Amino acid sequence: MKQTLQSALLGVVKRKVNSSGRVCNGSFAFSTTRNFTRSKSSQLPFSTVIKPQARHSSLLAIFVAASAFIGLGLTTSFIYGPTLHAEAPPKEKESGTRKIRLADVQKHGRDAEEKWVTKGTRVYDITDWIPGHPGGDVILRAVGGAIDQYWNIFSIHKKQEVYDILESYYIGDVDPQDLVDGEVPMDHVEDPFSGDPVRDERLIVLSARPCNAESPGEALSTWCTPNETFYVRNHMWVPEVDSKIHKLVIELPDGEEKEYTLKDLKKKFQEVKITATLQCSGNRRKHMTEEARSANGLQWNVGAISNAEWKGVRLRDVLADAGFDINDPPEDAKHAHFVGAEAYGASIPIDKAVEKHGDVLIVYEMNGETLPPDHGYPMRVLVPGTVAARSVKWVNKIVISEEESPSQWQRRDYKCFGPNVGPNQANWDEAPAIQEMPVQSAITSLRDISSSSPTDRKLLQVYGLEEDSVAVEGYAWSGGGRRIIRVDISADDGRNWHQAELLPDKSLGSKAWAWRRWRWVVPRGQVGRCFVVKAVDETYNGQPAEYEPHWNFRGNLTNSWHRVGYRHMGT
Amino acid sequence: MKQTLQSALLGVVKRKVNSSGRVCNGSFAFSTTRNFTRSKSSQLPFSTVIKPQARHSSLLAIFVAASAFIGLGLTTSFIYGPTLHAEAPPKEKESGTRKIRLADVQKHGRDAEEKWVTKGTRVYDITDWIPGHPGGDVILRAVGGAIDQYWNIFSIHKKQEVYDILESYYIGDVDPQDLVDGEVPMDHVEDPFSGDPVRDERLIVLSARPCNAESPGEALSTWCTPNETFYVRNHMWVPEVDSKIHKLVIELPDGEEKEYTLKDLKKKFQEVKITATLQCSGNRRKHMTEEARSANGLQWNVGAISNAEWKGVRLRDVLADAGFDINDPPEDAKHAHFVGAEAYGASIPIDKAVEKHGDVLIVYEMNGETLPPDHGYPMRVLVPGTVAARSVKWVNKIVISEEESPSQWQRRDYKCFGPNVGPNQANWDEAPAIQEMPVQSAITSLRDISSSSPTDRKLLQVYGLEEDSVAVEGYAWSGGGRRIIRVDISADDGRNWHQAELLPDKSLGSKAWAWRRWRWVVPRGQVGRCFVVKAVDETYNGQPAEYEPHWNFRGNLTNSWHRVGYRHMGT
Repeated sequence: MKQTLQSALLGVVKRKVNSSGRVCNGSFAFSTTRNFTRSKSSQLPFSTVIKPQARHSSLLAIFVAASAFIGLGLTTSFIYGPTLHAEAPPKEKESGTRKIRLADVQKHGRDAEEKWVTKGTRVYDITDWIPGHPGGDVILRAVGGAIDQYWNIFSIHKKQEVYDILESYYIGDVDPQDLVDGEVPMDHVEDPFSGDPVRDERLIVLSARPCNAESPGEALSTWCTPNETFYVRNHMWVPEVDSKIHKLVIELPDGEEKEYTLKDLKKKFQEVKITATLQCSGNRRKHMTEEARSANGLQWNVGAISNAEWKGVRLRDVLADAGFDINDPPEDAKHAHFVGAEAYGASIPIDKAVEKHGDVLIVYEMNGETLPPDHGYPMRVLVPGTVAARSVKWVNKIVISEEESPSQWQRRDYKCFGPNVGPNQANWDEAPAIQEMPVQSAITSLRDISSSSPTDRKLLQVYGLEEDSVAVEGYAWSGGGRRIIRVDISADDGRNWHQAELLPDKSLGSKAWAWRRWRWVVPRGQVGRCFVVKAVDETYNGQPAEYEPHWNFRGNLTNSWHRVGYRHMGT
Repeated sequence: MKQTLQSALLGVVKRKVNSSGRVCNGSFAFSTTRNFTRSKSSQLPFSTVIKPQARHSSLLAIFVAASAFIGLGLTTSFIYGPTLHAEAPPKEKESGTRKIRLADVQKHGRDAEEKWVTKGTRVYDITDWIPGHPGGDVILRAVGGAIDQYWNIFSIHKKQEVYDILESYYIGDVDPQDLVDGEVPMDHVEDPFSGDPVRDERLIVLSARPCNAESPGEALSTWCTPNETFYVRNHMWVPEVDSKIHKLVIELPDGEEKEYTLKDLKKKFQEVKITATLQCSGNRRKHMTEEARSANGLQWNVGAISNAEWKGVRLRDVLADAGFDINDPPEDAKHAHFVGAEAYGASIPIDKAVEKHGDVLIVYEMNGETLPPDHGYPMRVLVPGTVAARSVKWVNKIVISEEESPSQWQRRDYKCFGPNVGPNQANWDEAPAIQEMPVQSAITSLRDISSSSPTDRKLLQVYGLEEDSVAVEGYAWSGGGRRIIRVDISADDGRNWHQAELLPDKSLGSKAWAWRRWRWVVPRGQVGRCFVVKAVDETYNGQPAEYEPHWNFRGNLTNSWHRVGYRHMGT
C-alpha cells in the first residue's frame, strides 16, 4: 500500500485523496499520478504519491495548511499528531565528500534550474522535491538560502519522516570557510517577515514575527476600529501579492475550476457593504490565565477584537457564477475551504457559505479604504458572526468539499475541551472546530468624570447626575449574528446590577454582525472595588461568572465576566 | 377620534389596525366597518369600531390572544397594561326592574336568537356585542350561563372600560328565588375545562385548570417521551375540535386567505418527520426560586421539557401554496402569527417560518400516533429550536404580518429582564420575545448500581468498573438547532469535572432539534455531596454556575448548573 505524503504529515493513514478531501479508490480522481518513490528512500517508512501539476499546486497548499504549524513558542506548545524525535537532528550519514560555498547555494535560487537549500550546515538539492512539496510554491521562498526558519514556522516538519525526506536530497556540506563559529552566518538566512508592512506604533504587539498585536483602548472605544489600529492576527508572514495578477480560484466538487481577478469580482458581482466584528478565539485569554490557570497561547487582553465596515461581493454570488448550485448544494458539498497566499487554510460549513442572510463576502475594502496588507490585501474572506480564523486573508483558492479543511487550524487548533482535559487527553477529532462564537463583552474604558470639565458636564446631564461620577464603556458581541439585547453592569463586583446604555447600532448587513458598544455613568459614591460586565444575546444566552469551570488548555473563547478594578485617581 | 376596542383592551392608543397588525390611515384596509356606538354607551370612554364579518372572526381571535390573560394565580401575578380598578365591581346602577329566572337565561344559549349571560347576579343580553367581541366566537362558550369564570381566565377583562361595556348590555337581575345564599348556584356555572381529556396519573400536575403538568423522571429518561407522559402546558382549556371540519386559514399581508383541512394538508404536501424537543421557558423555575429568589410562575422542576418524533407538513410549503413568496418575502412580511382554537396566539420571525432548514411544521402525528388532544389535536405548529410557547396547539389561523403577534404571550410574557428589574420596572417593549433558547441540561436519574444486579453488572463492564458505583443520566439541549457537543459532569459539586457519555442521537431533521441524552457512571468512592451538570453547544456557549445573577422576576430560562445532592441509599 502506498501512503501519500500528506497522510504521513498528518500522522493519519488515509487512502489517496483529491483536493476536496474526498477519498478515492485506486487513483486520483482527476490527475496523472507520478510516483516519487526514490532510490535513496529505502529508509523512508512509506513511498510518496504526489500530483506534480501546477494546476494542483494550490490544492496542495491546502495540505500544507493541514501540515503547517507555527511553532510560535509562546502561542502554541503542543504538537500535532505523533511526533517522532521531533527535535532530533537528522541521522548522521557518511558525507562531507563535497564542500559547497554559500555563494554557490545563492546561485541556486528561485530562477535557477537546480534549486538548493541549506539546513544547518548541510546542503540539499530539492529540485525534484518542489513539485511534490505539500506546501506548494511556498518552498520557493527558501531556495538559494537557509530553510531553517521555515522549518521552525511550520513545525509539522519536525518529524523523523520529514527529516528523512530532506536527507534523501543531501548533496554536501557548507564550506567551512563560509562558517562563523561553525555556523552559517545570519546574512545567509532570509527573514520570512522582511516583507511585512510597517505598523502603527499604538498597536500592542504580543509577537512580532508573525505579527500578533491587539487594538489599543482608544481604538476599541469607537464604533469602527481605524484600519491602522485594527488588531492584527497573522499566522505567518504577510505575503506580497500583486493585485493585478492575483487570482481567486474556485474549485467545485467535480474538480471544475474558475478563476477571478479582483477586477472580475468588481465587474461581475453586486458590491455589498456590511459592518462586522472580527474576534480572535484567543481574545481575553490573559484573563483565563490570570483567573484560573495558565492557558497556552498569546496572552491577549480585551483587544483581539475589532469592528469595521467591509466592502466586497457575496461568496454565494461568486459560487453561483462558478457553476455551483447555491440553492440546492449537492450531497458531497459540505464545506467551503479557503486558502491564503501564505498557505493558511480553514473552512466553514456550506450552509453558512451559501445562506442568503449569511453575508459571507470576498472583501477588498475596509472602512472605505483599500484592504491593508495586514488584513488581506488584495482580497480576503469575511465570515461574519464566526471566529476570525475562518475569514482567510490573501485568499487565492476556495474549494467546495465533502470534508472540513484538513488544515492544522481547522483540525488541531481553534477547538475547546473540558476543564479536566490537558493536551495529552484531547481528542481533537471529537471536538468541533469553532465557528459561531459565544456571547462576549468587555470594559474598554473607565474614567472619572466631574462637572468641572465641559464635556463631562454634558455627559453627566444626559444621565441626570450632578455629582462626580465614573464613566465606563465597552463592547458586547455574540456570534451567528445574534443581537445583543442587554448589557448588565455592576460597580460593586456583581452584588448590584444595572443596565448599561446600548449606544446606537449603525451596522449594515442581514444580521447583527457588529458589536454593540455600551456606556454607563455612575456616581462615584456608588462605586466599589470592582466593575463587572456581562451581556445577553437574543437567544438569552449569557456569560459565566467564573473562569475555572470554563478553562481549556488552549485558552480559547474566554467569555467569563470581565472585571476591572477601580481606584479613584483624584481630581 | 374613535378608538378600537382592541386598543382599549391592550391599554394602548392605536390607530385602526387590520388583522396583520398594520396601522391603516382612516379606515380598515379591507372591510366594511360597522359602528357599534350605542345609545347606552354614554358612560363609555370611547366608541368601538369593529369588523363583524365572520371572515374576520379568527383575526379578531388574535386580538383576544393579545387581550386574553390567564389569571393562573400561582403562575402569573402581574397585570398587563394599566389596570383601572381591576377588581372593582361594575358601577351600581338603578336596576332591578326585571327579575329573570336562570331557566330563562339557559334558554338564551348558543342556538337562541338572543344570547344572554350572567355575571354575579346580573343578567346581560350580549347579542349585539358578539360580532364585535375581540375574542370572537369564544364568547359563545359562556352564553346561556355564567360568564364569571371566563372573566377570570381572561383577566384583561378586569378593567373599568370593559366592565362598562358589559354594563351597557344589562337587562335585569337573577330572580332571588334561584339564588343560594344570595349567589347563583354552581350548577349554573359551566366549567370551561369540562372538555379536557383524562390524563395519565404519572404526570406531575402543577395546576389542573388549565392543565400544567410535568413529565415524570422515567419519561425524561427515554429518547422520545411517551405521548401520555409528555409534559402538558396549557394556557386555557383544551378545545374540542372536529378534525373533519377544522380548517387552517392562511392570511397573507394583502388580506388574501386560503383554507386547508387536515385532509388537504396530507394530500397536497410532502409529509416530513422530525425529532424535536419542546421546552417551556419556565422549565427549572423552581431551581431559580430555591437558589436565588422567588420567581413568578409555575414552579417547574426539570420536567417542563419532552422530546418526540413529529409528523406533518412544512409551513413553508403551505405558505408557498397559499401564494406567499417564501424565497423573497415582501418587505411587509416580517412575522408569522399562529392562533389556536382556544384563542392562544404567538408569532415567530418570518425567516424562521420560511427557512429551508428551519423545519417549521404543521404537525398531526406525535410518536407515530394521532396528535393527542392535550398536544394540539388535530393540528399544531411545531417550531423546533424555539421556546414551546410558539408551537401553537389547535392552530386554526396563520397570519403573515409586519408586526409581531400582539398577544399577551408575545408582548407581555415570555421575556427576561435583568436581575435588578422587578415587575414595575420592566420595559416590556424593549425586551425581545423569547424565541431560540439558551443551552440547557439537567440530571433526570441518579441511582446506585452494583455488580450484584445482572443489568448493572453489564453497565459497569461498559465503563470498565468493578466496584459499586453511581449511574447518573440526564438531558442536554440548546435552541436554534445548535448541537450539544459536550456535557461536563461533576460528582463533587464542581471541584472536578468529567465528560459524560453522549448517548446515541437518533434524531431526524435539518438541525439538532432534539435533546441529547447522556450518561455517566462513577465509582461510589469518588462521589461527594453533590452531582452537577453543565453542557456546551456547538457555538461553545455554556451554562452559568450561579442563579442570582441570572434571576429574572418571571423566572424564565433558568439554565444555571443543575445540582442534585447524593446520599448513598445502602444496598
